[in-house]
Amino acid sequence: MDDYLRRIRDGSLKLYALEKELPPGEAVQVRRRFVEEETGISLPKIGDSSIDLDSVVKRNCENMIGTIQVPVGVAGPVLISGEFAGGKYFLPLATTEGALVASVNRGCGLITAAGGADVRILSDGMTRAPVFATDSVVHAREVVDFVKTHEDEIRQAAEATTRHGKLTDIQITTAGTSVFIRFCFTTGDAMGMNMVTIASEKAAELICEQTGARLVALSGNFCTDKKPAAVNVILGRGKTVSAGVKLTDDQIRTILKTNASSLLEVNTRKNLVGSARAGSLGFNAHAANIIAAMFIACGQDPAHVVEGSLCITTIDQAPDGVYVSVTLPALPVGTVGGGTGVATQAECLKLLGVSGGGDPPGSHAKKLAEIIAVGVLAGELSLLGAQAAQHLARAHKELGR
Amino acid sequence: MDDYLRRIRDGSLKLYALEKELPPGEAVQVRRRFVEEETGISLPKIGDSSIDLDSVVKRNCENMIGTIQVPVGVAGPVLISGEFAGGKYFLPLATTEGALVASVNRGCGLITAAGGADVRILSDGMTRAPVFATDSVVHAREVVDFVKTHEDEIRQAAEATTRHGKLTDIQITTAGTSVFIRFCFTTGDAMGMNMVTIASEKAAELICEQTGARLVALSGNFCTDKKPAAVNVILGRGKTVSAGVKLTDDQIRTILKTNASSLLEVNTRKNLVGSARAGSLGFNAHAANIIAAMFIACGQDPAHVVEGSLCITTIDQAPDGVYVSVTLPALPVGTVGGGTGVATQAECLKLLGVSGGGDPPGSHAKKLAEIIAVGVLAGELSLLGAQAAQHLARAHKELGR
Amino acid sequence: MDDYLRRIRDGSLKLYALEKELPPGEAVQVRRRFVEEETGISLPKIGDSSIDLDSVVKRNCENMIGTIQVPVGVAGPVLISGEFAGGKYFLPLATTEGALVASVNRGCGLITAAGGADVRILSDGMTRAPVFATDSVVHAREVVDFVKTHEDEIRQAAEATTRHGKLTDIQITTAGTSVFIRFCFTTGDAMGMNMVTIASEKAAELICEQTGARLVALSGNFCTDKKPAAVNVILGRGKTVSAGVKLTDDQIRTILKTNASSLLEVNTRKNLVGSARAGSLGFNAHAANIIAAMFIACGQDPAHVVEGSLCITTIDQAPDGVYVSVTLPALPVGTVGGGTGVATQAECLKLLGVSGGGDPPGSHAKKLAEIIAVGVLAGELSLLGAQAAQHLARAHKELGR
Amino acid sequence: MDDYLRRIRDGSLKLYALEKELPPGEAVQVRRRFVEEETGISLPKIGDSSIDLDSVVKRNCENMIGTIQVPVGVAGPVLISGEFAGGKYFLPLATTEGALVASVNRGCGLITAAGGADVRILSDGMTRAPVFATDSVVHAREVVDFVKTHEDEIRQAAEATTRHGKLTDIQITTAGTSVFIRFCFTTGDAMGMNMVTIASEKAAELICEQTGARLVALSGNFCTDKKPAAVNVILGRGKTVSAGVKLTDDQIRTILKTNASSLLEVNTRKNLVGSARAGSLGFNAHAANIIAAMFIACGQDPAHVVEGSLCITTIDQAPDGVYVSVTLPALPVGTVGGGTGVATQAECLKLLGVSGGGDPPGSHAKKLAEIIAVGVLAGELSLLGAQAAQHLARAHKELGR
Repeated sequence: MDDYLRRIRDGSLKLYALEKELPPGEAVQVRRRFVEEETGISLPKIGDSSIDLDSVVKRNCENMIGTIQVPVGVAGPVLISGEFAGGKYFLPLATTEGALVASVNRGCGLITAAGGADVRILSDGMTRAPVFATDSVVHAREVVDFVKTHEDEIRQAAEATTRHGKLTDIQITTAGTSVFIRFCFTTGDAMGMNMVTIASEKAAELICEQTGARLVALSGNFCTDKKPAAVNVILGRGKTVSAGVKLTDDQIRTILKTNASSLLEVNTRKNLVGSARAGSLGFNAHAANIIAAMFIACGQDPAHVVEGSLCITTIDQAPDGVYVSVTLPALPVGTVGGGTGVATQAECLKLLGVSGGGDPPGSHAKKLAEIIAVGVLAGELSLLGAQAAQHLARAHKELGR
Repeated sequence: MDDYLRRIRDGSLKLYALEKELPPGEAVQVRRRFVEEETGISLPKIGDSSIDLDSVVKRNCENMIGTIQVPVGVAGPVLISGEFAGGKYFLPLATTEGALVASVNRGCGLITAAGGADVRILSDGMTRAPVFATDSVVHAREVVDFVKTHEDEIRQAAEATTRHGKLTDIQITTAGTSVFIRFCFTTGDAMGMNMVTIASEKAAELICEQTGARLVALSGNFCTDKKPAAVNVILGRGKTVSAGVKLTDDQIRTILKTNASSLLEVNTRKNLVGSARAGSLGFNAHAANIIAAMFIACGQDPAHVVEGSLCITTIDQAPDGVYVSVTLPALPVGTVGGGTGVATQAECLKLLGVSGGGDPPGSHAKKLAEIIAVGVLAGELSLLGAQAAQHLARAHKELGR
Repeated sequence: MDDYLRRIRDGSLKLYALEKELPPGEAVQVRRRFVEEETGISLPKIGDSSIDLDSVVKRNCENMIGTIQVPVGVAGPVLISGEFAGGKYFLPLATTEGALVASVNRGCGLITAAGGADVRILSDGMTRAPVFATDSVVHAREVVDFVKTHEDEIRQAAEATTRHGKLTDIQITTAGTSVFIRFCFTTGDAMGMNMVTIASEKAAELICEQTGARLVALSGNFCTDKKPAAVNVILGRGKTVSAGVKLTDDQIRTILKTNASSLLEVNTRKNLVGSARAGSLGFNAHAANIIAAMFIACGQDPAHVVEGSLCITTIDQAPDGVYVSVTLPALPVGTVGGGTGVATQAECLKLLGVSGGGDPPGSHAKKLAEIIAVGVLAGELSLLGAQAAQHLARAHKELGR
Repeated sequence: MDDYLRRIRDGSLKLYALEKELPPGEAVQVRRRFVEEETGISLPKIGDSSIDLDSVVKRNCENMIGTIQVPVGVAGPVLISGEFAGGKYFLPLATTEGALVASVNRGCGLITAAGGADVRILSDGMTRAPVFATDSVVHAREVVDFVKTHEDEIRQAAEATTRHGKLTDIQITTAGTSVFIRFCFTTGDAMGMNMVTIASEKAAELICEQTGARLVALSGNFCTDKKPAAVNVILGRGKTVSAGVKLTDDQIRTILKTNASSLLEVNTRKNLVGSARAGSLGFNAHAANIIAAMFIACGQDPAHVVEGSLCITTIDQAPDGVYVSVTLPALPVGTVGGGTGVATQAECLKLLGVSGGGDPPGSHAKKLAEIIAVGVLAGELSLLGAQAAQHLARAHKELGR
């Protein structure tokens, strides 16, 4: 230990290179010790982890010093009626925000009492949009024309790099001399960002060779990854999923302690009109909370919570009640790769019956998307219901004066 | 154990009520066992946690079954020159996305080599915007007038609920009969959402009593919390922070393996023009990645990654180099409350010298905001540099043909 | 004539310089003749205008060759109950889009039958936001601090340039080294863009002198003028106006041939949810149509139709009917300056009782804003009513099968 | 006359019905007289028009009382190198905003001196997106599936209603139970809104019959017409056009009195960064000004100025200068129908060589789009150049101190 610490201190050993000389567990320990010495802060809890580190240091985290432990609770069981998820599920939510699990749990109870939630995937495809520089608007048009007339060739180049990825759509836009080409792929059970980046690079190279365009960046932000963008609302990214449930007036009254018109008013004034006036791309109450908690539990990329917040929540008047829905236009999820193999995260995926590749390929990722969408629906129902109940209570109180 | 399991099964004991009868550790164990039995899935790793559960089950997570372990690595040290953070810091990043820590680490090295990053907080204030219903546009105007002419009274009502919260701004907007009043508070070292919600409720009650408006929801989405909204870009929410660094042509060439004009072109075509064409509210490369990883490490609310993605990254031509900056308009952070007290997260805060309340109050939260902003700057530098280097390499290759 | 044509042809007389040598009418005639000769196209109708050209060639249009005649119709009378407009008004609409006047006319009839429309101005202020370059984020913060601590000095400098302009608000935002300072002024009866540009220049000069910031452009697009921007939705620009009307179930049935729930469904699914999914900043049916037609009729700047389209239309369930409203966050109007002095446009302003400066100053511009808002309300009512009626009719037809 | 006035006054003749009893000229005169009497305001100039009223009262304007005369000036000639427009053109601009024609004129001079502007149409298609209500998210998915598997049938139904309209694309999105289907058509030389509305209605009826969906509104705001929406930026609407021009350092210096780096700085800080921070969908200086002026001159629908403001202006560093471009994603124009037949407007179209239907069909509308795009480029060049020149002058002055 001391020898390694000395070498790090004198610069002859790089902090990130410890794994080249030591087994993962020891490398992590030495590195943590070094950081403790440099800062004078001891990190015993971070160092006390139960997961196997071998694959983690290779695939998930460089310069590792231990783990952060995030409390995980369950909501449910919730009854789901999807094309991939069917039956009752306990939803794992990793969170430090008190009341979140309780809130989702209440929503799950309501959904189950109401006969379960419908859920459907509307579209599916991970995207990557390189940006190309051209010499003039004339050149830009030539590149656009080339892509439109050579889709087969481009598809062949792209798909040659991947076993599961299939190019399903190409969307092009330009801004002067910049050409943005958004490639969309189905990616099996992987979330698929790496897969589509590699495939897009091949497609991009072909386009450059044939048109003289210069590839400026493999991601030109028209993808759009981890930024809140209308393009994802409009065209979808990852899974586009809708979940909905019919509530009777009786269920609204007995379980949510409110009524249909209060629910409708809260959703309209807050989620629709309020979001509109805020210049928001998200029209929901707190979809990001549920997505963050389920993503961390299930080894998904938590930066993708950004896309999750694009959710729209709607409430329709229906005979004898309401129909409540959430639509997530851009839910990027996978059950292989990324953080899905870390031990605790893998257990959560198993809990949902979606660990590893599905049969047929893609079915696990789709099932996970359906379950998360229902989790979001449960969260929205619970929070909107609580606000409507307070609203109603206040109204009664005022009338009583 | 068996007795509890039986009672849960027969419905006489609610799953969430176990903590009322058992100490936290046992309650979590029984609940996990129940879920294991119901699903037929064993959850040994989730059950094997090292953090103390007592406060966690009370404050952070209901229906707890254990913990998710997220690998944490360090980037840096990075030299920071802020008003609250000064000196070198190791940045803790909890992530399962391979290459992220390595990328930020490279950016930290560049910043330090360049003499450190400047960082400044431009504004500070947590917001909550209740929505009120009025009877007509005439009534709506009366409510607006009331608020504008009774700010002191409203401030008094709001601030009576809190020790650290100070009402600093009120912004009103309307849409027909809906009135949205966005209260902005400084909140000391707490992220402050709960604090401002309670304070806003008091203010809202006063307004209702005096104007006859009906409070529809304490959050009217004009706040805007956890949805990507222009109002937060324009008015700020939480901390508004900018970090910047001057790079010389020599540093760009030797460390980033590219040149100033390639860096500029990547930032313009991708982060500015590409984001514009995508209808995005975020104009950066991958700010959300760093924010997610540091938020999870430091016990911040990961759903707030949504706001973090509103970052704009700029590159200016400067004499003999470039000046690169990131601006985060809405970074909600705190060093007390929320997940900051969970054992592993508290260690990360200590590592940064910001655990618990600062002296003066608020200084810890501001220091944390400054450090995270520099982390984002490091991430942007590294990724933009990599893209520019590839771009330059391709250009050379093409010229060589 | 021939001599002038020859000199223009040989380049010794610039086309735009004709007014220096000839009276307006002749200059316009010579120029038109030149264009006719160059293109081989005769322009008799353009040349046959009835307005006085003297002031027009000086203030409104360079290189003039005649006039475009836009048909103008009237809708109404419509009963208005505002703070500045009270009573019945005929609305002049200059348009070539068939059915528009008829549609607004129907809406006016409905409003009048319903007892008139309420209308209120929520805020008032024309804005200009210069952009400054600074050297670093530290320098940017210094500029922000300077402005926040020298508001009086800045106000004095700005207001010294104008008789009617009063600086009422300063909103600052930054992006790295760029500082945007949005000055907001009341501008009396003028729309005020020129006035606030001149005043902002003085304020900007003071800021540059005192802080070392460089003024890059007097308009930094954070104003925002003639681009659709959330900042105008959130903070307002020009007049922010709401108009509303209560409709009884009986009026909905007999005049609109539909019912409350159909109206509500059309507004929710189209104006709120549809706009949300389109990534729109406008949540209305066709506000821009009415604004364009009234702006052209009344000599307003038709490029400001962009701001008008930011309108949100809401429908609330009310006892025995609905309350319908429109809110225009950014309606820039004036009754002096710009095109208000052109003879035909001046007649339209007179028709509304708002020609020239009001007493007190500003009252004419506000009255015009109120009237236009009610015109928009009439247009929305008519179109939404028509769509709801068709919707209802289709539903009946389907039930009849 | 008096008899008609009496009957209008006593309600036995509707104001809008005058054309049924009188020839257009007299009907307009009686109506104007009535309005004059009711308001006590005389409208002599409005009444003194030179255009033929016969077709106008039928097609363009109900309840007509006369015309508004808008001054029209010419900018240019400007040299254009498009696929439809080639050679030099005088641009007609109808405006009352002083300095606008002069500014565009300066830009035209610069473009011509620089060898002319390139211009290309990137896509072409007018859209209409009905919104349908379904019973559940399951039903919504069935509707989506139906449309995706019955494109030929839907195309047939839609195209049966029109001679020139061809259905080229269908884009579907949903929000819970609301389904938005955006039909895109080429429409020959017509702007095409009416054509595509009629065709979309047939397609919608087919979808309703086959799926049980209910048609709520023929326009569901996902079109998006006359509201500023990201969907139009991303997918285009009407013509998507780019115009660009290469400027040498010498031209920048001698004609614009500035230099490349000042131009670049103004465009980046104002049009890109400033627009981003304003939450804008438009990234330009004043595109709407030119579009408004040319639309009014050429009989286009001035409410479509909204879409025009979505323009993005870019400046690239180029060897020995810069390349400046504008991209208009959504420019709805036509040379038949709408206001194109009004006498003065028709003359402007003739001036540009695009009056009436083109050969082949569509070529006139495309040529008009190209010319307007170059007009916008001229306007941007002139304004950005002026701001950059002032910026440079200030910088020199500061250095001189």
